[in-house]
Order: sequence, then C-alpha cells, then structure tokens
Amino acid sequence: MQKRIRDYGIEIGSLETGRLNKITDVSGVTVGHATIDDGPLKTGVTAILPHQGNLFTNKVVGSVHVLNGFGKSVGAIQLEELGTIETPILLTNTLSIGTCTDSLIDYMLEHNPEIGRTTGTVNPLVGECNDMYLNDIRTRAVQNRHVREALTSVTTDFQEGGVGAGTGMKCFGLKGGIGSSSRVVSYPHGSYTIGVLTLTNFGSLEQLRINGKQAGKIIKQRLAVQRDELDKGSVMIVVATDLPVSSRQLKRIIKRAGVGLSRCGSYIGNGSGDIVIGFSTVNQVAHRSDGRVNCHRYIHEDDIDPAFLAVADATEEAILNSMLTAETVTGRDGNTLYSLREFIGFL
Amino acid sequence: MQKRIRDYGIEIGSLETGRLNKITDVSGVTVGHATIDDGPLKTGVTAILPHQGNLFTNKVVGSVHVLNGFGKSVGAIQLEELGTIETPILLTNTLSIGTCTDSLIDYMLEHNPEIGRTTGTVNPLVGECNDMYLNDIRTRAVQNRHVREALTSVTTDFQEGGVGAGTGMKCFGLKGGIGSSSRVVSYPHGSYTIGVLTLTNFGSLEQLRINGKQAGKIIKQRLAVQRDELDKGSVMIVVATDLPVSSRQLKRIIKRAGVGLSRCGSYIGNGSGDIVIGFSTVNQVAHRSDGRVNCHRYIHEDDIDPAFLAVADATEEAILNSMLTAETVTGRDGNTLYSLREFIGFL
Amino acid sequence: MQKRIRDYGIEIGSLETGRLNKITDVSGVTVGHATIDDGPLKTGVTAILPHQGNLFTNKVVGSVHVLNGFGKSVGAIQLEELGTIETPILLTNTLSIGTCTDSLIDYMLEHNPEIGRTTGTVNPLVGECNDMYLNDIRTRAVQNRHVREALTSVTTDFQEGGVGAGTGMKCFGLKGGIGSSSRVVSYPHGSYTIGVLTLTNFGSLEQLRINGKQAGKIIKQRLAVQRDELDKGSVMIVVATDLPVSSRQLKRIIKRAGVGLSRCGSYIGNGSGDIVIGFSTVNQVAHRSDGRVNCHRYIHEDDIDPAFLAVADATEEAILNSMLTAETVTGRDGNTLYSLREFIGFL
Amino acid sequence: MQKRIRDYGIEIGSLETGRLNKITDVSGVTVGHATIDDGPLKTGVTAILPHQGNLFTNKVVGSVHVLNGFGKSVGAIQLEELGTIETPILLTNTLSIGTCTDSLIDYMLEHNPEIGRTTGTVNPLVGECNDMYLNDIRTRAVQNRHVREALTSVTTDFQEGGVGAGTGMKCFGLKGGIGSSSRVVSYPHGSYTIGVLTLTNFGSLEQLRINGKQAGKIIKQRLAVQRDELDKGSVMIVVATDLPVSSRQLKRIIKRAGVGLSRCGSYIGNGSGDIVIGFSTVNQVAHRSDGRVNCHRYIHEDDIDPAFLAVADATEEAILNSMLTAETVTGRDGNTLYSLREFIGFL
Repeated sequence: MQKRIRDYGIEIGSLETGRLNKITDVSGVTVGHATIDDGPLKTGVTAILPHQGNLFTNKVVGSVHVLNGFGKSVGAIQLEELGTIETPILLTNTLSIGTCTDSLIDYMLEHNPEIGRTTGTVNPLVGECNDMYLNDIRTRAVQNRHVREALTSVTTDFQEGGVGAGTGMKCFGLKGGIGSSSRVVSYPHGSYTIGVLTLTNFGSLEQLRINGKQAGKIIKQRLAVQRDELDKGSVMIVVATDLPVSSRQLKRIIKRAGVGLSRCGSYIGNGSGDIVIGFSTVNQVAHRSDGRVNCHRYIHEDDIDPAFLAVADATEEAILNSMLTAETVTGRDGNTLYSLREFIGFL
Repeated sequence: MQKRIRDYGIEIGSLETGRLNKITDVSGVTVGHATIDDGPLKTGVTAILPHQGNLFTNKVVGSVHVLNGFGKSVGAIQLEELGTIETPILLTNTLSIGTCTDSLIDYMLEHNPEIGRTTGTVNPLVGECNDMYLNDIRTRAVQNRHVREALTSVTTDFQEGGVGAGTGMKCFGLKGGIGSSSRVVSYPHGSYTIGVLTLTNFGSLEQLRINGKQAGKIIKQRLAVQRDELDKGSVMIVVATDLPVSSRQLKRIIKRAGVGLSRCGSYIGNGSGDIVIGFSTVNQVAHRSDGRVNCHRYIHEDDIDPAFLAVADATEEAILNSMLTAETVTGRDGNTLYSLREFIGFL
Repeated sequence: MQKRIRDYGIEIGSLETGRLNKITDVSGVTVGHATIDDGPLKTGVTAILPHQGNLFTNKVVGSVHVLNGFGKSVGAIQLEELGTIETPILLTNTLSIGTCTDSLIDYMLEHNPEIGRTTGTVNPLVGECNDMYLNDIRTRAVQNRHVREALTSVTTDFQEGGVGAGTGMKCFGLKGGIGSSSRVVSYPHGSYTIGVLTLTNFGSLEQLRINGKQAGKIIKQRLAVQRDELDKGSVMIVVATDLPVSSRQLKRIIKRAGVGLSRCGSYIGNGSGDIVIGFSTVNQVAHRSDGRVNCHRYIHEDDIDPAFLAVADATEEAILNSMLTAETVTGRDGNTLYSLREFIGFL
Repeated sequence: MQKRIRDYGIEIGSLETGRLNKITDVSGVTVGHATIDDGPLKTGVTAILPHQGNLFTNKVVGSVHVLNGFGKSVGAIQLEELGTIETPILLTNTLSIGTCTDSLIDYMLEHNPEIGRTTGTVNPLVGECNDMYLNDIRTRAVQNRHVREALTSVTTDFQEGGVGAGTGMKCFGLKGGIGSSSRVVSYPHGSYTIGVLTLTNFGSLEQLRINGKQAGKIIKQRLAVQRDELDKGSVMIVVATDLPVSSRQLKRIIKRAGVGLSRCGSYIGNGSGDIVIGFSTVNQVAHRSDGRVNCHRYIHEDDIDPAFLAVADATEEAILNSMLTAETVTGRDGNTLYSLREFIGFL
C-alpha cells in the first residue's frame, strides 16, 4: 500500500475524492504500466484506456490543451480539430515517441482490420517527458512489447510513483513519476467524477510548495544544494470525467490543470512541455455516421465551476502523490534522485 | 429588383440556393440597414438578427474565425470561449465601433432589465470595415439612432449593395457593400439552409476573378488604372444556418468562407481584417441553467462536407452580389468608385 | 502613503522588486486614473501609457493572452495578429467599453490627423471588469471627459486600490481594485524590469490565499458568510517590460500571469474574464515602412525563465496590493465590501 | 525532363518564378526521396532540408499552420511554441509516422551526441498523407533505411510526381504526389525567393480547377465517373523563404497557402489533413544562448503582401505540377489513378 499525501494529513481543497482517489474512479477508465528498470535504463510506458470497448469504433469526446509547447506529444492536431479520442493514451520518454506511436498504430490495426482498407487511418495519442537524468534515454529502450505490456496490464488500482513512464522522471529536483487523484462534483442532476493522472518531470526544488507551504526551500537547505536548476522537464496531465460536456467545455475544464500545477510551485518553465489531455466518457461518438442527427448531453455553462475547481485540486494532489509514492532511485551515471517521502517528516 | 450574379447567367457551384438566395433563407434570420448618405458622409449600420425572440435569454450557438486579424471587431473573445451569441450582430465603419458597441449595449439593457442587476453583463458583437475612401470616416457620423434604425428595420428581403454598413465600401477597386447568398444541403435526416452575408471592402482590382475568370485584369485595362493598390480594406462575413451543429463544428464550417474569398481573388491581404461570424439557430442556449443536463443535436462529422462546400460557394456568390448590386458612387473629396455592373457586359 | 503587502512583512518570491514596486518601474510607462464616486456610481477609468511619445507612429511590441474569455475587452484581434500596440490601454467597467472605445478613438484622431485620411484606422485597446455589485453599472457613468482625465493625469507614482477603473471592483468577496508590483531580472547583458498592473474583480472568498496561506477561510469564518459565491467577476492584467523580446516571446511571458493568479486562489472561474495584455518598450515599430529591413533585439529562449518567474510573482503581489490598498466601500443599494486590511492583523 | 504546368502555357499569377521554379530556389534548401514501388506497396519518404549545416545547433525560424486538423503530423506543438525548426522535415504515409519519427530521432542522435546527455531532446518534424487507395498502407513498408535514403539523396533538382512520399498519393481523383514552385519578390532592400513544395492527396474530381477553369467537370465526364468522392485525403505544404521574417510574420505568410489550395478546387474537406510548415533560412537561432542579446532582421509588416501573393500563387502551381508530373499508376487491388497529363490536351 503506497502512502499518499492524505496519509500525511494533508488535504488539497475541500471537494470529496472518489473511492480510490485515482483517475480510475471514473467508470471504465483503466491504467497499465510497463516498467524498464535495468541498470542505466530507467524508463517505461504507461497506458490510459478511456473505456474498455473498441475506442476506434466508439470514440470518446476529448480535448487537448498546451500549457507550454516545449514538448513532442503526438496526436494533438486531430484531437484539437475533431474533439474525439480514438486510441488509448500512451505516456513514455521523449525519444521513444516514435516507437510508441508505431506500436500503438500496430495495436489499432490488429483490433480494427478495416483501418486503411474500408475506412481511413487512425490518430495515435502519445505523450512524453524527458527522463534523461536517470535514464540512458539515447538507448531508446522502449520496444513494441513494452507498449503491449502496458496496454494489456491495465487495471483500476494501478501503481503510482516510479513505475511505467514514471520510472525515470524527476520532479522539483526530487524523484517524480506517476501520480493520480480524483474529485466528485455534485449537481441537482447527479454526481460525477473527475480524475487526474500526472506524469511529473518538472519544477525546480526551490519552488516546491506543498498545500501552499514553501517546502522546497526547506528541503534545499537540508540537501545543501548550491545552484538551483531551472524549471525544466515536462508534465503530462490526463483528465478523465463522466460529466456530460462538449469538447469545448472539456477544454475549458482541463485548462484548470494549470492552476494545480502553479500551486505546486511550477511557473510553467520554458523547457517544460506541459500538456493536458482530457476526455469525457459519456458522450461517445461512433466512427461512422448512421445517417441520423445525434444528441449530446451537456451541462449548462453556469454549472461548470465545480469541475474547474475539481481539476485544479486533483492536479495539485496528483503531483504530490507522484512524488510521495516514488522511491529514491539511482540511475544513469550514478545520478540519484531522492523521494519526497524522505523529507516529509521535516516539513 | 436588384440584378445579381445569377441574373447574368453565372452560377457559383452546383448546390441549390434557398428561396431568396440570401442569408434570410435561414428561418428566423432578418437583416436591417441604416444608410447615411449625405455629401462626404457615406456610411451606415447593418444589423443581423439570428432570431426574432430575446437573444439574451435564448442565445444561439455561435462561432468566430479570424482569417486575418487586421481588424477591430468587438465581441470575439467571449464568442470564442462560450460558443454563443447573445446580441444582434452589427456591422459598421471602423471608427464607429465604439458608438455601435455602446448603442447595442443600450438596446440590450432596455430589453433586459436584469442585466447588471440580477444577472451579469452582455457581450455586444460589432464588426467593421474601413470606408475612408468614400466616407469622411473621421466625422464618425454613426449615432445611436442609426443603430436603432438598423435594428428596427429588419426584414427578410433586405437590400444589397451600397446600403447600411456597405454604403461607403470598396471592393477590388470597385464599389463594394452588402451582398448575400444561400445554399440548401440535404441529408437523409432533412434539408438545411446555409446563408452568408458579406460586407465587402477588400481586394486589389487586378486580382478580381468572377467564377474563375480573371475579370479584374480586363477591367483594369479598360479603366487604364496605372498603379494597382494592395489588397487592403477588410471583409466581414456572417454565416447563418439551421443545421444542428456544435460551436466546434460551426467553426469548422465558417472557416470555409476563406475558400470563397480566395476564389474571388483575395489573397487575404495584410491590411484586410477578414473575420467570419457564424451561428446555428437550432441549438439555443438558455441564459440561466435550469439545473438539468441538456441535449444538443448535431450532425456526424462525416456529414459536414456539404456544409463546407455550401459556405465556400455562398461566400463567393455573396461577394459578387455585393459588387453587382452596388451603384457607382462619388464620395469624399470627389473619390469615385464604379459599379462592377458597368463592366459586366465586357467580361 | 498606501500600505502594501510588503509593509506587512510578506514577500512574494525572491526576485528583487523595482524602485516603486509598480508597473511604472519600466521606464516610460505611466498610469492615470479618473475616479467616479458619486453615491451609487462607483466606477472609473484607468489609463496605461506604454511610452510618452506618439504610440501610433511608434508602436510597441505587444501581446495578449486570454486566460478565460468570459470578457468583453476590445482590440485583442489585431494585437494578436500584428503583435503591436498603438494606443494607450484603457481599463473600465464592462458596460462602458463602447464609450471608452469611442473616446480613445477620438483621442487618437486628435493626435494623429493622418488617420482615416492618408493612412488607415487605429486599433483601440480597452479592457474591462464588471463592477455591478458596488456600482450602478446600468447608468454607464463613464463619459468622454473621464477618459481624457485618465489619459492626461498619468504619472509614475499612481494610486492603487479603489481608484480609477478599480473604484467599484470586488475581489475574493472583499474590496478589489488597482494593484501593481514589479521585478528586476538580471542577465550577463544587463538588468531589466518587469512590471504588472492588475484590475482585480474575481475570486471567491473561501479560495483566497496569501503567500500560500488559506486566508480566505479564516476571513470567511470571521465574517460568518454562509453561502460562498462563485469565482466570478474578472481580472485584467497588464504586463510591461523593457526586456528585448519578440511578440511570441512576450506572449509566453505574459501567460505566466496565470501562475500568480492561481496562487492567490483563483481557479479562473467560468464567469471571470481573465485577460493579460503585455508590451515591451524596447523594440518599437514605426507605423510606416522606411523601405528597409529592420532589426529587433531579443533574448535567447533559454534566458526567458527569469521573466516567467517575475511575471508569476509580480502578478501575485499586484493582486494582494490591490486588495490591501483598497478601502472598505459601501455602494449601490447599500452593498458593502470590506478591505482586506481589516483582516490582515488576524491572519 | 518532367513537363509542368508552364510547359502547357499556363501561368499562375504574374510574379516571376525562381530559376528552377522549385522550393530549392531558396538557397540552401534541398529535397530527397526514397520511393517504394513494389506491387501493392506504393509509398515512400520525402525529406526537406532547410539548410545544409547542422539544423540542431543552427535552427531556422519556422512556423506551422493547420488549415484542417484531420491529420497526424508530428512536431507541431513545439514548432508553434518556439518558432524554430531543428530537424529535417519528413513526409510519408499516415501509418508510417511512427517509424519516420523514430528514424529521424535516430539520425539526429547520430549527428548530435550531446542530445540526451548534456542538452535536452529534439523535436522531429514528420508530415503525412493517407495513400491507402494505391498503397497497401497496413503493411507499413517504410523502414529506417528509407528515411536514411531520403535524407542522404537530397538535391536541388529533385523529381516531382509519384516519387518519395508522393508515390501512392491521389489528388482530385487523379494521381497526385510531389509538386513544387517558387516566386521571387522584390523590395527596395533586395529580392527574395519563396518556394513551395506540396504533397498532394486531396480533392474531389468535380471540384478541380486549373487556373480558374473548371477542368474537373470535363475530366469527370470523359471518365464517366458516376459518384463523386468527397474531398478526402490530405495535403502537406512546405514553404521555404530567405525573406527576413519573424515566426509570427512567417505564420501569416504560410497561411496564404490556403488561398492557392482553394483556387485549385479544394474546399478543405473534413477528412483532409491540410497542414502548412514554413521556414525562413535567414534568421538562424543557435541551440545554446551565448549570453548576449541577439538581433533578428525582419521586414516591415506593410511590406508583407508580396510574400502573401507569392505563397498563394506558388501553392496553386505546385499542386498542378504534382499532378502533371505524376504518371498513371495501378496499385493495390488493381486500383488505378490516371495522370492529369492524359487529359490536359482536352481542357
């Protein structure tokens, strides 16, 4: 059982969390990891499945928001244009985006024999962060089998920390990785869940804040770090919800991930590719037209604020969870990153 | 009865037009003008009403697309964010945007006593082109009463050419103004109308094309114009439809106004503020939430191509109609612009 | 002498401030107010002049970023396209944008007789927030003379709090208004100043944070407020700098205003039109081409992080300054907003 | 010697072309192909090199514009954010973007040992169109060696038509592929070249226009095609110039590719991923900061119109060249596409 920020008595915001306090609290969402931990190779793949059916034939309403575009994510152009997601979302290291894109295409072709024959092609979604500090990233260790492993090992109660794509990541000068959190928002018409998963690889130690407290300065003193590094790296943020929203509304909602990010101490640094991908599982879109006019359910715009707040708070918490659940790791060239857990007692 | 491009035997594209071949073929849409034609004052206001009810309490799904942002239109930020239109759309000359904005606010306050008291404010939509060649634009002749006149004189069978906001406009070195056209698109689930209204004030004579033919070069020779002017000025394009679409889909649809514009000979010049505003009358949005989840009807994305083609063709035709229906005019400082009609026989 | 957040021993971030710790620390920048405080009329105009010469003939490199587009600001389209600012920036109440736009055009015509005669038109920049809680906004009290007063009373050591456009504003359920702050960033090639001015009218009391501390919850308890309001209203943020940057770089820099905003407790609420306008005073652009290729100085992208941090921190501080310098005010219908200063001792 | 549109006496626009009338008229630019033509495998790779030095250490100012985002191009996010290109540009088929991305990373790592060690990662640029009609796209025939072949076979006098990435493409229901054209624009301060390369795979036959003439309808009659297909497929457009411009100006310039595209008969169909990538070779950006303020040369905005016109005209001509230089091809499942050349005599 991994200890998370709430286990230390720290609650972010006042909204209720979902059952697992993970992105998988949104019904149908699962997450899988393939972890590569072999000497100087510290990297991997994380897969997020928006639902358990065929995503190509039943797309989910989706959206993408680029907080800072110093990043190499694949698939954003079509997601922005059409507002739908038609493949699982993969996260990996920056130099493995080609392999992951190719493997994801491979996987989609296998499950959809009509692609490239009787229908068009497919838009793979791959996000990335640069794990070169711990990982020998030039080796590009990720292979097709790792993508398959991530895609087939999906579960609702997935691991956080230094696993999957998070294996080699660095956050606020400490060990980063995969973290997640969720919130429940209530309306007269029902309760809905908003879940966030982050792949954290950004920030400078001095800037780290924990629920408003300037924890980074204290840790920096203890570590006797001299020169602080810039806010480099990146963060990938995936937002899932069962709230009935249009892709326009969804885009507004996922933009608020920047609020949580800022409160943790990021100033969305130049070198940090900070990208948010979101989807709503309720308004699914068939691949082919059935010749009819369809209906999409959506909330009134005046009802959108709780979703904004939920994303802001869940992102802040997911980032902290990614750091607390990660272990101290020594990787490439003896480079070591400490877990935030080693300092949480002093804060 | 104003002669239009089809009256000269020229048909743009192969889609069927609506009954009037105007934007008002979309049920509920009306257009009104206030024309100022007083010596060197050649300007005015044109108002487009998306429906005949209270637009503030029943907003229409809307969208805006900036083809080239050398323009001063008011209201685009909120339209882009929320995807709804809550006031009539006004068109006028560039230096009268302040007056028109204020007058439109005035009109909205009068009809909605709750604005600024029990509910928030209102987002006025005002587009503009620079009519300084014919009009003494510095005098800013447009006043509150002209806005009221435009708003209260709305009709379905409105005038085209040098009327309303089009009074002083210049297009391809000839007289421009207001022009309109429409198309009918058919699906298994029904037929829908797409209407376009343009306020034309752009283009260099040499570039003018009529249904693909390089008419501008011929006219230029006849006029013995020496130095050709740049593609300056601007064009405002308003697209109306009763097709069930989301604001995202609508944005994709109205972007294709650029296709028609290009085919007339515009290269979307640096100094030309080319802006498209669109709305769909079917998915109306209540000002206040009723605490329920609502439904929006929308076509499948695969069914969107006819709407693209309709906007492209209707925009091209509306531009030509604006030029053919405009009379030759002499304005400020003896500046004269000829009607395209004077040359159509030679082309 | 108005007490500001640093006078209470609270420092935001670790970068050095400019001399006045205001936007006017950027050489050439001045700010003027016209305050309307007459019974239920609590509103006004604030003018920011990027430099003291003719802005139309010597434009400054500029940029705009829409954090949340529930707002009615005028002039963003052309600023986004051309990356230059050619008028003073006015701030006012939402329903007075028409009057302010018209008055600013009037002022520009007066100073530039060539506009609308031998050259084109002008792009007025007007931002707004909704002050309807304290101000009888429907009366639209702002008139041409107030705009002139703001434009002609500019100074470097301007007032903050409930003055000018800030007169009737509300922030985190308390009194908002005008606030400012600045930072100095140092490079091998020199030191530069980044200044921020905010017109604050956003936030829900419960969310207010002061330098990370959840001050809003404490104040809410003391005030015994039952139902918290949503994060409505708006915030206008103006960023000035003498850093040599392109409009693209400037846009990246001003986006980080969202970081400071988030840290104060905003989740960038649905109803809040949060808009940032920025300019750099060093790379000026002549209105007319001189037929030559020009040069713009700009920093390397790797050197941009200090500017990001400066905007984040100065925005956070400017917001707090706006609240601390504002007095408690009773306005329309007896509506009262307390100054944050009344609670700062308890926090 | 491949016959092109001018060899048939048809001139697009009135601007002078460069020496070769190809993108390589821009000094330093080269293009290479790897063609796969093996039974049902009809595909390949085309590489465009912006200059002949190390692109990673000396980046070119770049820009990207998405005309219609139904496409899977890789690398747009960072290009949009930073305005620089740091790798060759690859074009290929849609399902080979993963392989090409990976191979391009491989190539960049080989030439830049510091990537992933002492500096960050690299942003590969890969564009695509769907060649499934002629090509067995599911086989994903493109391999690392094809990418290397394209990158190492670059030349200024490259082939057009059904070569490289163009091998299996389809345009207006006929054979598409690679086409190119260029224009010279003159200013008081010098003459500059603007070159365009297109990978054409879009359009419905009925819509094809040749210099304004509705050629498609005539060809359709001759071919006795019954049911017209939608404007599907895609087009990739690469614009090169030695004009001194900022990335913002470059973005404005490359947007005008849509004008040429429209005039050929595209209405920028729903299923067509129409993406433009541009670069200017004059303002190069060093990978690392040298601690100084740099200078970029740029033209005055008023001087930008000739560049707009050049891109519009060169794009139109490049598309026609792609079709005329392509041979009739029979590919997968006996699918045959005719060359436009077979009909040009009848038009």
